[in-house]
Amino acid sequence: MSETATPMTTTAITDSQAPARRKVHVPSAANGIPVPFTEVTLSGGNPPFRLYDTSGPGSEPEAGLPPLRAEWIAARGDVETYVGRERRLEDDGRSAQRRGAASEEWRGEARAPLRGKDGQRVTQMAYARAGIVTREMEFVATRERCDVELVRSEVAAGRAIIPNNVNHPESEPMVIGRAFLVKVNANIGNSAVTSSIAEEVEKLTWATRWGADTVMDLSTGDDIHTTREWIVRNSPVPIGTVPIYQALEKVDGDASRLSWEVFRDTVIEQCEQGVDYMTIHAGVLLRYVPLTAERITGIVSRGGSIMAGWCLAHHEENFLYTHFDELCEIFARYDVAFSLGDGLRPGCTADANDEAQLSELRTLAELTSRAWEFDVQVMVEGPGHVPLDLVKENVDLQQDWCQGAPFYTLGPLATDVAPGYDHITSAIGASHVAWHGTAMLCYVTPKEHLGLPNRDDVKTGVITYKLAAHAADVAKRHPYARDWDDALSKARFEFRWEDQFNLSLDPDTARAFHDETLPAEPAKTAHFCSMCGPKFCSMRISQDVRRYAAERGLTADGAAREGMADKSREFVELGASVYVQAP
Amino acid sequence: MSETATPMTTTAITDSQAPARRKVHVPSAANGIPVPFTEVTLSGGNPPFRLYDTSGPGSEPEAGLPPLRAEWIAARGDVETYVGRERRLEDDGRSAQRRGAASEEWRGEARAPLRGKDGQRVTQMAYARAGIVTREMEFVATRERCDVELVRSEVAAGRAIIPNNVNHPESEPMVIGRAFLVKVNANIGNSAVTSSIAEEVEKLTWATRWGADTVMDLSTGDDIHTTREWIVRNSPVPIGTVPIYQALEKVDGDASRLSWEVFRDTVIEQCEQGVDYMTIHAGVLLRYVPLTAERITGIVSRGGSIMAGWCLAHHEENFLYTHFDELCEIFARYDVAFSLGDGLRPGCTADANDEAQLSELRTLAELTSRAWEFDVQVMVEGPGHVPLDLVKENVDLQQDWCQGAPFYTLGPLATDVAPGYDHITSAIGASHVAWHGTAMLCYVTPKEHLGLPNRDDVKTGVITYKLAAHAADVAKRHPYARDWDDALSKARFEFRWEDQFNLSLDPDTARAFHDETLPAEPAKTAHFCSMCGPKFCSMRISQDVRRYAAERGLTADGAAREGMADKSREFVELGASVYVQAP
Repeated sequence: MSETATPMTTTAITDSQAPARRKVHVPSAANGIPVPFTEVTLSGGNPPFRLYDTSGPGSEPEAGLPPLRAEWIAARGDVETYVGRERRLEDDGRSAQRRGAASEEWRGEARAPLRGKDGQRVTQMAYARAGIVTREMEFVATRERCDVELVRSEVAAGRAIIPNNVNHPESEPMVIGRAFLVKVNANIGNSAVTSSIAEEVEKLTWATRWGADTVMDLSTGDDIHTTREWIVRNSPVPIGTVPIYQALEKVDGDASRLSWEVFRDTVIEQCEQGVDYMTIHAGVLLRYVPLTAERITGIVSRGGSIMAGWCLAHHEENFLYTHFDELCEIFARYDVAFSLGDGLRPGCTADANDEAQLSELRTLAELTSRAWEFDVQVMVEGPGHVPLDLVKENVDLQQDWCQGAPFYTLGPLATDVAPGYDHITSAIGASHVAWHGTAMLCYVTPKEHLGLPNRDDVKTGVITYKLAAHAADVAKRHPYARDWDDALSKARFEFRWEDQFNLSLDPDTARAFHDETLPAEPAKTAHFCSMCGPKFCSMRISQDVRRYAAERGLTADGAAREGMADKSREFVELGASVYVQAP
Repeated sequence: MSETATPMTTTAITDSQAPARRKVHVPSAANGIPVPFTEVTLSGGNPPFRLYDTSGPGSEPEAGLPPLRAEWIAARGDVETYVGRERRLEDDGRSAQRRGAASEEWRGEARAPLRGKDGQRVTQMAYARAGIVTREMEFVATRERCDVELVRSEVAAGRAIIPNNVNHPESEPMVIGRAFLVKVNANIGNSAVTSSIAEEVEKLTWATRWGADTVMDLSTGDDIHTTREWIVRNSPVPIGTVPIYQALEKVDGDASRLSWEVFRDTVIEQCEQGVDYMTIHAGVLLRYVPLTAERITGIVSRGGSIMAGWCLAHHEENFLYTHFDELCEIFARYDVAFSLGDGLRPGCTADANDEAQLSELRTLAELTSRAWEFDVQVMVEGPGHVPLDLVKENVDLQQDWCQGAPFYTLGPLATDVAPGYDHITSAIGASHVAWHGTAMLCYVTPKEHLGLPNRDDVKTGVITYKLAAHAADVAKRHPYARDWDDALSKARFEFRWEDQFNLSLDPDTARAFHDETLPAEPAKTAHFCSMCGPKFCSMRISQDVRRYAAERGLTADGAAREGMADKSREFVELGASVYVQAP
């Protein structure tokens, strides 16, 4: 059932008139599905350059996004609508219960939830294993500019996932796997220190504008259900959650009162809303908890510590582990992917790769295999805080033990001494871990360890992680990755300042920094830059070198072939000076 | 002549009463030389923690710093004062010539220059090779907390340098070599886009306050001689320059008018002022220039392009190469170290590790050996822009070909697509290259490729590079490196917020970010943080776990020894809940 490759076509539909950067849609090869890209128009006769685009079609937040995938899902004929779980005020927390309503109810369309018909596993993995190429795979292959069969086979093997809950038809499919571009997740979500629903939706839109490939809603405050509804309905990217956070809210923050029943109810609630992947801390086993006692920073994962606390309080095995098969059955009916949480991840470089962490990883490997028996997609979460010399071992063990299931790491931070700069300490670890095979990076903002990220922090975190991910793509020699660097470097060398800005990960900042030193408009077409000034510019001088070489038919190849000593003599013999003094 | 080790002693002289971070001086073992550290006082009965300190003793800029090393230099009896080179107005550029004076003459003491007596090589390398342990080496060993014999032997072998011009007695000795802590250089200096002398001195002080180990004055604008005088007289760290910049100013920016004579005069001028190391682009050979013609970004080094332009204009070999032995003779009389410039370094990831770059590196290796014949200290500069998968090859080749001479790299940037964030893209490469053996990292600021760094950019650049260097030290398992991480992580785990701030690379930013979310003073002693709020805090829960384990005599070791399954049963049998619900 596999199709022919769907490489980048040259035709594109322009849907915006923004002059230099605009969204275009490239039709997929098999079915002409329009797939979005950002197209950068370049000057000087250079062809336009296309960038991967995560920003979605845009909408009024009150209306939500159009349900791109609704027809694809329906056409497969394996899902049914049903009367969903009854909405309860406790889903939104105590304030909503007092108030009798969430602070801002969802105002857009309310659709009946979908789920797989009895016995149907409606997951991309199930389709891939059956040899079916879905529209989602086709979309993804066009985005990634790869053969669709690569997508299908990687998903079938469990080495990649396409997180796509049938109840989140608004999302534009994307793939997470080491054979593809490295992805970036941004965390948002309110907390006890409150922020409004509108602010969270704004953060979502802001994060995807700058390139977030998925967004996790980690809300723990008020209006938790309704905030999520607004987020999912407005998200063009997969949404992840950590359902234990909401479950804990439902038992008034008392971890000892948690139970499988409360948790299961919360999972169903979130499945029906359209959450695409959920972090499940099923690897925090009772017997691993004492392994953390002598660590410097013990357990630093919120979910991990909740489950460790529960295990100790009840002296029972983690209910997420004992009920794991039931979770698989649920996830298979919605196509929710597991993000197997690393509740025992190290919280400082001293604790990295210790027995607690690796014991849990072995259990996550076991759970990966179990989920695959249900055709449920899985990724595995990783640390955290890891010194550079231990990073590769982390990926290698995860990839080996979990049979290539996508690794999804938080950083890791390469040192603990720079609070306020942990987006950077973690980007160092992140680029490294991604180069060695991590499929998705969870961003870290400058506020990590200190406070809650604001809008600026979200942008800084996303851009920092996009550059770390891209550095890994380049190091992995991913097809097309370095093309972007080359296009920008060529623009830089040729003093095409506007092209350089427009090709940047963050054109606004690049332009603003340039204007700070040389604000005049002509400076943007100047054949020099503010570092050296007009008097001696290395780029200009080396353009002279190139011209000199070209005029005389000298090439680097030629020089190498004929020998350098000869070339030196040739220079001397060639006579006239070509060195042109700058004005 | 080697001495016993000079490990950190426990006595310290307090010279400031700043409450939490203060400067202390630890006497060196052999001669009791006071060596500065920053001591962080910690709460909760934790011992104070000492950090490497680069900030110097402080002074009024008009007076300059005390000449710490003057007596040590004089005591060796191998230098003489002499009537220095005649000062000329052209040393300060055209504005000074018009004006008849620099805009702000140096107002502090003017000392007659020193140089080695006839036939005397007054370099740390010469002493080290003769088996002499200098006061400088003793100072350095105390700073690095290593055996002084390690310092002497590494300097003797050329694997480390102590850049210490006899005319810069104000500097506190430091060592650059892969056996020691990774160092960070900060670039300052005015340009055609002018800044005042006072601003540059302020940037110097600011950079060393945040941890710059050396500072390069890359001024190319007005008052170039006098700016340098102010900088050297006020610098507690070695000062580097690129003398070709000033030489070019002396010939009105016309590279074709450069000559060995003009360059030599400039070098002597700077030797007499006290510059500790100079970037010399002697590896840009005529025959290598055409190798750059087909690069995407040609030649991006200013010095490299000036010399390439000169070579092409004159059809002669680079005069820095042909007069290299004369340079060595000069440097040996002042103890100026070479920083052999990589004029053909790649300016984009596409050009990395190409024939132009590697050809020049082979020549730098040849020059390293020649300098060593004169007992002149050498470090070798490196790129630039290098994808992660080629970084290690860079260090390995440099270390192999240059026989372990310290590598000094600019970044490298791991990708070209993020102008405005190049401190980060380069810190990714920098931590990586330092882990594999680079001895000093030249910082990159957020303004790289776009404009001139201001004060904030200098700080961001320094902090970013300090964290990259430290991440490398941790990965290299440098003794003491991870102690810092552990002290901070322990403070974090124990909610010692003020300790966490004070142990940070940048306490001000850490504190400010924390206060943004939770400004109240009690929040700084709270046993939770703003990310989770008081309701469920992972750190608090894992402290419960630790207490639980301790009370019952459970240890991680014990758990591992007795087997996990047993431990699980033990937990269940132990009965009562220890999970304490947060308020």
